[in-house]
Amino acid sequence: MEEFDVIVIGSGSAGYVSAIRLGDLGKKVLVIENRVLGGTCLNRGCIPTKAILKAADVYREAHESKIFGITVNDVSYDPNGIKSWKETVVKKLVSGVEFLLKARKVEIKYGRGYLIDGNTVEVETSQGKEIYKGKDIVIATGSEPAMIPAFKIDHINVLTSDDALELTEYPKNMIIVGAGAIGMEFATFFNSFGTKVTVIEMMETVVPTLKDRKLTTLIQRIYQKRGIEFKLGQKIESIDVKDDRVNLTLGNGEVLETEKVLVSIGRKLNSENIGLEKVGIQTDRGKIVVNEFLRTNIEHHYAIGDVVGGLLLAHKAMKEGEVVAEIIAGHETKMDYRVVPWAIFTTPEIASVGLTEEEAKNQGIDVITGEFPFTANGKAVSMNATDGTVKVVARSDTKEILGAQIIGPEASVMISELALAIKNRLTLKDVGDTIHTHPTLPEAVMEAVKVPLGEAVHIVVRR
Amino acid sequence: MEEFDVIVIGSGSAGYVSAIRLGDLGKKVLVIENRVLGGTCLNRGCIPTKAILKAADVYREAHESKIFGITVNDVSYDPNGIKSWKETVVKKLVSGVEFLLKARKVEIKYGRGYLIDGNTVEVETSQGKEIYKGKDIVIATGSEPAMIPAFKIDHINVLTSDDALELTEYPKNMIIVGAGAIGMEFATFFNSFGTKVTVIEMMETVVPTLKDRKLTTLIQRIYQKRGIEFKLGQKIESIDVKDDRVNLTLGNGEVLETEKVLVSIGRKLNSENIGLEKVGIQTDRGKIVVNEFLRTNIEHHYAIGDVVGGLLLAHKAMKEGEVVAEIIAGHETKMDYRVVPWAIFTTPEIASVGLTEEEAKNQGIDVITGEFPFTANGKAVSMNATDGTVKVVARSDTKEILGAQIIGPEASVMISELALAIKNRLTLKDVGDTIHTHPTLPEAVMEAVKVPLGEAVHIVVRR
Repeated sequence: MEEFDVIVIGSGSAGYVSAIRLGDLGKKVLVIENRVLGGTCLNRGCIPTKAILKAADVYREAHESKIFGITVNDVSYDPNGIKSWKETVVKKLVSGVEFLLKARKVEIKYGRGYLIDGNTVEVETSQGKEIYKGKDIVIATGSEPAMIPAFKIDHINVLTSDDALELTEYPKNMIIVGAGAIGMEFATFFNSFGTKVTVIEMMETVVPTLKDRKLTTLIQRIYQKRGIEFKLGQKIESIDVKDDRVNLTLGNGEVLETEKVLVSIGRKLNSENIGLEKVGIQTDRGKIVVNEFLRTNIEHHYAIGDVVGGLLLAHKAMKEGEVVAEIIAGHETKMDYRVVPWAIFTTPEIASVGLTEEEAKNQGIDVITGEFPFTANGKAVSMNATDGTVKVVARSDTKEILGAQIIGPEASVMISELALAIKNRLTLKDVGDTIHTHPTLPEAVMEAVKVPLGEAVHIVVRR
Repeated sequence: MEEFDVIVIGSGSAGYVSAIRLGDLGKKVLVIENRVLGGTCLNRGCIPTKAILKAADVYREAHESKIFGITVNDVSYDPNGIKSWKETVVKKLVSGVEFLLKARKVEIKYGRGYLIDGNTVEVETSQGKEIYKGKDIVIATGSEPAMIPAFKIDHINVLTSDDALELTEYPKNMIIVGAGAIGMEFATFFNSFGTKVTVIEMMETVVPTLKDRKLTTLIQRIYQKRGIEFKLGQKIESIDVKDDRVNLTLGNGEVLETEKVLVSIGRKLNSENIGLEKVGIQTDRGKIVVNEFLRTNIEHHYAIGDVVGGLLLAHKAMKEGEVVAEIIAGHETKMDYRVVPWAIFTTPEIASVGLTEEEAKNQGIDVITGEFPFTANGKAVSMNATDGTVKVVARSDTKEILGAQIIGPEASVMISELALAIKNRLTLKDVGDTIHTHPTLPEAVMEAVKVPLGEAVHIVVRR
């Protein structure tokens, strides 16, 4: 029975990053993967959606090129071509992960991993069962789309996001259930190719994780303008498929007929059938319970990524992967969840980090805010991309920045400056006094932080 | 004779920003402008070039859309349409500046301004001469393309950048003199529309302000691959126009024939014929001499923007505009030129802030560096935009970040995070420990800073 320093179960964002970092820290590592290296994010999540959204961008921009003096008369799209671009991207990155792991001499074993006892893991490979021993075990089994029975997901007319990525024909109309990140990205995608998209959300706002009513209303208005319809505060009563059409009944009795339904709510954490109970690892409603050192209740057993719950985000999982590796290697470190930015890759993009105004107020923090719209940013005007705004939230007393939200072009890029500011407890003045290149989009960040200081130049602030 | 608190001569980036800030600080301000509000940057520089480069992007991307599954068969461009887009953008932003000034009750007077004596300025308007008095005078007269006689600029075949913006037909071939920011942006622009572009540079590298030979070589290689030809380390011996063709003789004797020559070297500072000698304001080779408080040698006379020399950048001018306003209003502040980022809006973009490795070494600073190529960044792969790299330079001892250079998609956006880091004396670890959203371009920044720390995950660093 081969022995390793560390066995990592799962090679998604959490797993492969921890394995690489463990390898760099001198550990002999085995990674067990039951599907494809890279997990959800790389194969069925963040990466393939970014690849197809790029295609949607190119298509939409070709259609909107006239304003720039460019005439495009004959533009068409090929779902198979888009799929093949997506596959090229995924393949390149999966083989990249393989290369990175091998360079650290990490061993990869394909098969389903089960915890047998404190230090042994059984792998069900295509060649039969194999057993490996590890001084430490890292569980990084991730999550998958929840198969909510009432939604009758048949993978043909009622789809998960995994299915939507494989479509080789785009529907004329589509209902997307859930206005979160996945729902909004697919809504943007299909809307770009002419699908009539209706998004249904149980909560009263789009992107419900963004707790700022003014901003979610702005987002809704922008996407309505682009032709996406929203039905908010609506439960799904029932979904019925008949003759290749779907009838969807809402809580208010309204019946919608559509070609395809995409269900983008809920992820199921992969904590079942991996032997947790055998070893006695504690879970809480499907989540593996860990402390800030990512330790489970059982010695030498760690868990990271989606399976420990919290924000189901690849970069949160990756950070946990790095931290767990350093902890196993004996470094003094722990997870800091204070600053976890996120982004939605719609057009325009949506990004947030730290607290919103609403969240800060709910925590009883006295805050000042600043906002700067992209209509007043020269670079955004030159790109014809002025939808959106930058909002910053800071403590009234110390002016420390507590949060920032961006709706606008390249919001996913711009949010990193504000994450850095919050992580390092910088103030409005620290960001405002930094010269920002002209003409660039982040000037909007600089102006937004200057608004509450009374120093903003490119906006008129009525007092 | 009307009296003002402050008279600002010139309404370019320096002038209009100082006027707005002065207005917000309660000053009664007069701005004198002899052309159009907004000056070079807004009317003939940064902004119109960004507008036309967006058109070039759209055109190029339509041609390169096949890889994404999008087929574009019939795409054409209309130089008049592109010009009209540019004019729309400029007009919108010029009227924006007017709105911002008026909201601060800043008076605008069109005409040429001359200093008459210590506190009076004469304005030659279309209605005749008018005289105004100001307690303080801010000179912000800017710069214009240098008309080097040897280059025989005729504005028809031998052009300045001002002329190039007005072309209503793009040449089959073009020689661009100067591989700086302006030269590189126009090279990208015309190359996108099929013009055969040759760039001639006196220095041995492209973008000579970027003192990092490895990076300038990379830039050169990227643009050569796109079909731009470079002749480096070459002086122009002579330029002769004959029958609508230009013959350009290089220092090495080589003669090049071309349709158009664009001269993008040298700017002339506008310090002549504005009455400096009348008041006794000191200049040095065309620059108005100021101290760190932007004061000239004459009391109550300040100068800002291009006319004081240094980096001829709009955002440096804008910062000087803010600072001079605050100084006039009695704030304790001064200019800090330590962190002035810059960007070139080619495809991919080029951006830099702080010191390069070479500059740091020349200053005797012991540095460590980190580099991360966009080929290893998932978002860049998904965009098919992997040309380029992020490089960071830090002190070996304290790990304080001293500089960063980015060649790559959205480099102009990403550089702001690093400017913030340098301005606030953050270390490699401060940036590296900040969670960066996945999958985004700034993950490349995070990985680059982790390279010298031995913590980079998505790259193999051989030691």
